[in-house]
Amino acid sequence: MELAEGILDGSVKSLARLISWLEDDDERAYEEMRRLYPHTGNAYVVGITGSPGAGKSTLTDKLTQVLRKKGYTVGIIAVDPSSPFTGGAVLGDRVRMSNLCLDPGVYIRSMATRGHLGGVARATNDAVRALDAFGKDIIIIETVGVGQDEIDVIKIVDTTILVLVPGMGDVIQSMKAGVMEIADIFVINKADHPGADQLETEINVRLEQDKQAKDRKWVPPVIKTVAVEGKGVNDLAAALERHRAYLEESGELEIKRKKRIKEEILSLVESTLLKLLQEKFMSGDSFEDIIDEIMSGENDPYSTARELLKRIGLDVTIQQ
Amino acid sequence: MELAEGILDGSVKSLARLISWLEDDDERAYEEMRRLYPHTGNAYVVGITGSPGAGKSTLTDKLTQVLRKKGYTVGIIAVDPSSPFTGGAVLGDRVRMSNLCLDPGVYIRSMATRGHLGGVARATNDAVRALDAFGKDIIIIETVGVGQDEIDVIKIVDTTILVLVPGMGDVIQSMKAGVMEIADIFVINKADHPGADQLETEINVRLEQDKQAKDRKWVPPVIKTVAVEGKGVNDLAAALERHRAYLEESGELEIKRKKRIKEEILSLVESTLLKLLQEKFMSGDSFEDIIDEIMSGENDPYSTARELLKRIGLDVTIQQ
Repeated sequence: MELAEGILDGSVKSLARLISWLEDDDERAYEEMRRLYPHTGNAYVVGITGSPGAGKSTLTDKLTQVLRKKGYTVGIIAVDPSSPFTGGAVLGDRVRMSNLCLDPGVYIRSMATRGHLGGVARATNDAVRALDAFGKDIIIIETVGVGQDEIDVIKIVDTTILVLVPGMGDVIQSMKAGVMEIADIFVINKADHPGADQLETEINVRLEQDKQAKDRKWVPPVIKTVAVEGKGVNDLAAALERHRAYLEESGELEIKRKKRIKEEILSLVESTLLKLLQEKFMSGDSFEDIIDEIMSGENDPYSTARELLKRIGLDVTIQQ
Repeated sequence: MELAEGILDGSVKSLARLISWLEDDDERAYEEMRRLYPHTGNAYVVGITGSPGAGKSTLTDKLTQVLRKKGYTVGIIAVDPSSPFTGGAVLGDRVRMSNLCLDPGVYIRSMATRGHLGGVARATNDAVRALDAFGKDIIIIETVGVGQDEIDVIKIVDTTILVLVPGMGDVIQSMKAGVMEIADIFVINKADHPGADQLETEINVRLEQDKQAKDRKWVPPVIKTVAVEGKGVNDLAAALERHRAYLEESGELEIKRKKRIKEEILSLVESTLLKLLQEKFMSGDSFEDIIDEIMSGENDPYSTARELLKRIGLDVTIQQ
């Protein structure tokens, strides 16, 4: 049986294998994903991001419990961008609450993706789609940090929850503009720690500036939680429902999803072309000779790039 | 006069304009870069990275003063990856020491780059090359944070200095493996603050584990500095010289630079292809129709990507 068929049939084993293929960049995944595609588009995708130690895993687990009580099935993907240097996993020591693992309505998967830029987002996107086809109502992507990888991952979600903790005042100040903007909902976790109110004020000041500048229709709420005790998690679930309703009613959800498809096509084209070039032209002795010529100043990378493109039939100007 | 000619002739104005072209992704930059290429390869490139607030700017300025006293000319590029959401600059309020600005042996430039993934690294690489052709002996790239963008930027440098500050014990613990590995030299800045010794111990423990695991020949030194007072900066300059000598004598410098050229060619090919696809095929009404078909489930992104590649004459399997 094909994996796609298995997944549509509810086989956790098929699902797990397909996600492994996605992790490993296995080319067999493509055909399975193509088959699953018509069965997707029903799941709602939530991203939970924030600095290491902010309590994202605990919050994800507690939120999942609330969503389960509301009758939703849930898929959780813990994205763990590998080091480009080691290729190794980071969150190996991640401990999950065992009661969630025993709930058949919940599927939890940690993904260690590797490879070229954008690969993390691509593989995560496909894993989300697989969970969508598998029938999960809500899919939560949990991701660490606020780098480009994480921002790319966040681009594939419908609602982004940014988790902060008190004592991060300086972080807010120095945060990249983009990080504030990705948040649809702010969570101040560990809100029983000193400085929670101050952090809330700082976020609201930043949001106020942002609102004036942009005329945003959705003003991100700031929810205080103590995830380990489950405090505030119902409020978070309610905020999530409100944001979803807002996106659906305003038509923004459709716009977002269209944009995402466009970016996905671009990314697929990109990764295919890169592999083609690397396999066919950028390996072997003749390419080493070209590199030597460049090192000695007889040739340059710009002319070489143009030459490579000519070999696949494209006579174009190199663009920065 | 062409910009390349001007730069080789020592014109700061030409240099500034070329870097602006690189920032703006101006296609005229390509020809100038191609002309400059044979005049490059002489500069030594240093990356200074670390969290916001670690004192990187001050450290860069002080290190530059020491290097100037040793007789080197210095170029400084402060990389400031724009938010993918606003396209705006982040470090607008950056204040530089005025005495450096008055030294004709120093060129300082803040770069706000935008655009697609990898664009920051590409533009920075070209700016470094322009400064190299301009005749700067040492080029320092200062970059904020530890995301994918920063790691990509670091890939183009010869020596990477990672700046940490006391009280970051937790950060070390949770740091991605790759961040530790990119450092050729560790700096504990603000070493007069409590916790400096503890941080040093933690770094050394991690390095010891790393060394055993990898059999690294270069063991990164840990240098304590108080940048605002200039303390420890001579030690840092000495460590930099040692690392440079190590890379040159071991042949690693050549290997690094060859690898970099390879990656650069790939990146040039990639950005050119993407622009081509976006301009020719991925805009206009017909593409909107395709997106609508995908949204309704009649088509899928994988088949569409393959179709696009066929249009540029490539009949290949889509790769994840």
